[in-house]
Amino acid sequence: MEQIPKILSWRNMLVLSLALNFSLVLRILNGDGEERDSWDRTASVSIWPTTASGSSSLSSASCNYSKIEEDDDRIINLQLGDPTVYERYWQEMGDVTTMVIPGWQSLSYLSDKNNLCWFLEPELGKEIIRVHKVVGNAVTQDRFIVVGTGSTQLYQAALYALSPHDDSGPINVVSAAPYYSSYPLITDCLKSGLYRWGGDAMAYKEEIPYIELVTSPNNPDGFLRQPVVNRSKGVLIHDLAYYWPQYTPIISAADHDVMLFTVSKSTGHAGMRIGWALVKDRETAEKMTDYIELNTIGVSKDSQLRAAKVLKVVSDSCGNETAKSFFDHSYDVMSERWKLLKQAVKSSKRFTVPDFASQRCNFFGKVFEAQPAFAWFKCEEGILDCERFLREEKKILTKSGKHFGDEQSYVRISMLDRDTNFNIFIHRISSSFNSTI
Amino acid sequence: MEQIPKILSWRNMLVLSLALNFSLVLRILNGDGEERDSWDRTASVSIWPTTASGSSSLSSASCNYSKIEEDDDRIINLQLGDPTVYERYWQEMGDVTTMVIPGWQSLSYLSDKNNLCWFLEPELGKEIIRVHKVVGNAVTQDRFIVVGTGSTQLYQAALYALSPHDDSGPINVVSAAPYYSSYPLITDCLKSGLYRWGGDAMAYKEEIPYIELVTSPNNPDGFLRQPVVNRSKGVLIHDLAYYWPQYTPIISAADHDVMLFTVSKSTGHAGMRIGWALVKDRETAEKMTDYIELNTIGVSKDSQLRAAKVLKVVSDSCGNETAKSFFDHSYDVMSERWKLLKQAVKSSKRFTVPDFASQRCNFFGKVFEAQPAFAWFKCEEGILDCERFLREEKKILTKSGKHFGDEQSYVRISMLDRDTNFNIFIHRISSSFNSTI
Repeated sequence: MEQIPKILSWRNMLVLSLALNFSLVLRILNGDGEERDSWDRTASVSIWPTTASGSSSLSSASCNYSKIEEDDDRIINLQLGDPTVYERYWQEMGDVTTMVIPGWQSLSYLSDKNNLCWFLEPELGKEIIRVHKVVGNAVTQDRFIVVGTGSTQLYQAALYALSPHDDSGPINVVSAAPYYSSYPLITDCLKSGLYRWGGDAMAYKEEIPYIELVTSPNNPDGFLRQPVVNRSKGVLIHDLAYYWPQYTPIISAADHDVMLFTVSKSTGHAGMRIGWALVKDRETAEKMTDYIELNTIGVSKDSQLRAAKVLKVVSDSCGNETAKSFFDHSYDVMSERWKLLKQAVKSSKRFTVPDFASQRCNFFGKVFEAQPAFAWFKCEEGILDCERFLREEKKILTKSGKHFGDEQSYVRISMLDRDTNFNIFIHRISSSFNSTI
Repeated sequence: MEQIPKILSWRNMLVLSLALNFSLVLRILNGDGEERDSWDRTASVSIWPTTASGSSSLSSASCNYSKIEEDDDRIINLQLGDPTVYERYWQEMGDVTTMVIPGWQSLSYLSDKNNLCWFLEPELGKEIIRVHKVVGNAVTQDRFIVVGTGSTQLYQAALYALSPHDDSGPINVVSAAPYYSSYPLITDCLKSGLYRWGGDAMAYKEEIPYIELVTSPNNPDGFLRQPVVNRSKGVLIHDLAYYWPQYTPIISAADHDVMLFTVSKSTGHAGMRIGWALVKDRETAEKMTDYIELNTIGVSKDSQLRAAKVLKVVSDSCGNETAKSFFDHSYDVMSERWKLLKQAVKSSKRFTVPDFASQRCNFFGKVFEAQPAFAWFKCEEGILDCERFLREEKKILTKSGKHFGDEQSYVRISMLDRDTNFNIFIHRISSSFNSTI
């Protein structure tokens, strides 16, 4: 017991020392003696930004959206769901999520040889369970966790695990349109004899085994979803990448056989390439693990450890009464963006976006409408090819509805880009902006 | 120009500050006031360990192999090529390879949107070229670099890129036996319509297109290899994971169409899951990039940045005349291990290992025999199932020759485990040790 105060004192010194590092790194990167922006100033202080503090901009939802740096010639690319909107939050958090990795770490392939998923870092497993408990968006009890190089790899691992490996031929994989545009491409890219893309689940009439993908909230349109085929020979994969309270009310803890999540959309760290599956059945989890072993012999340990740290900070922030939590901040950002989008769409009269029902969110304890990561955006007034119209007339790159099994009058637009790009997007669709080309 | 001394002075402070961090982390991890082992002592000093310094153990090849901590009941698992032998070097190097990653890094999926391989971190690309120039083991000029989640993913990317995508049916993939045991499993796991495992290249007689894998030095037997089919309709993938000077003389800079490398075997950082391909043809490189986009939407940025740092330290160490380079150290370790293995095998009379011809290594400027990462180990005296014999009689787990397309009298044994396990292995095969079970 004697030693505790001593260790604590070393830890305190470590925090100070890390802070010193950080300020020095920033000084070197930015040069010396110049003005810093807000995240730079806070970076050397290892405390939660409080709403009472004037030095933090996290108390406001986002940047000043009325300040638009328009440049008529600039092409705005909102095709991908690149989650750079979250950069500012993590910058403002300073060094609480800074990771120090010594050179002798991550030499072994193995993370935990006693775990079914032997390449899962125990710390990440712990923080996955904790964040789901804090948010209440998924049941983790009696579930196996399989980590993947993003949820994309886990989708393929689930297909491998759930397909029959006998000679019955490839199983049909279906999802209700509009469905995530990458599903058909990933499913069919290797012409697998285990599975094949079967198209729109609403049109599926066969009485043979199938796999149905249920993406909820759905990519691209943001609606919560249920399975639609509902036949006896079906198995389900639930892609819950967007089932987080910044995007949609958390109405209950999801409780399905195979559930996929990713840090890309929850915390915004897409470049880490870390996803996880919560799996009820041991054999399915084992086969998913086998697939990832064959495909990439495990998953980056460095990114797993970073993901664990980021998820810990997210969970910690939810219990911190003096600071703005990650979800408070990201909810506010998405709320403000959707408010601006709806206003712009309404004023333009040429476009529409979906209407969402208000539901009670168990996490926030309040009622609100979905505010998805993508806008499923429709061109009206006889504009048949919305992607082309936005590209040619507004210089905005989007993804056509045809890739999602829907009409070309729809496009998917990322709502997760940086403030500057989002501002220009809103300006261009609400104004009489036309391309100068 | 005035600012340079100022920035340098901040950099110097940063080095000191990082060193302070490090010593504090180690203090916390190890408790306080206790004796430290050699890497712990040196960890807070950010300098190259010199051969003249008594405080570094890198001047000797390895631990004292004569000091064996035998425990008759302990099972020694040498099935995998887990490269933990390199841990000690990186521990001794202290904090020169320590990575500090702030929380707002790695949010975007993109690394370099102007590069063909848009998810390759530019710093890693630069260090890959540099290390090949320093070692002289591969031509990098006019090559595209594609990064992968280990070379395993790149092998699949190459199959995807080199297979015909028309209706001609799956192309045969062959490799001369003994071949890497994972090749058939990876190739056939999804029953792809693009490619299929075609077995031993030596037995391949068909006149239709094929892909031949040339693993050189070969896994499992360590020999340098050339293609064996040599027909007009073949394309080649060269797996050069082990073409580094600690394992084999570097006889020339490899100059092939598709060459695969990985940090797992070059620097020992298997847990990073970072590999790279050097690709001559643009279209092949584009298709490999497409596969990795479909499979995992890129590769962990955190591990790419760490890999860049580790490769930089390796290259720097080669030009450092006062210190022992990474390859000097790892060559000495492998040399000593092979000397001990050959002695043990000779004294036992029950086992054999391959004989390698001496060749001149351009990197070291000296002549030596291959000292591979695996021993292709043969049981003699009528022991038909060598894997079973070693498991039951010596409590050593190995991988049977049958998995490599060869006889069961052979096993593959990892030479890359930690000193303790290697010592016990040598002790058990050279002595009259028998299981007590």
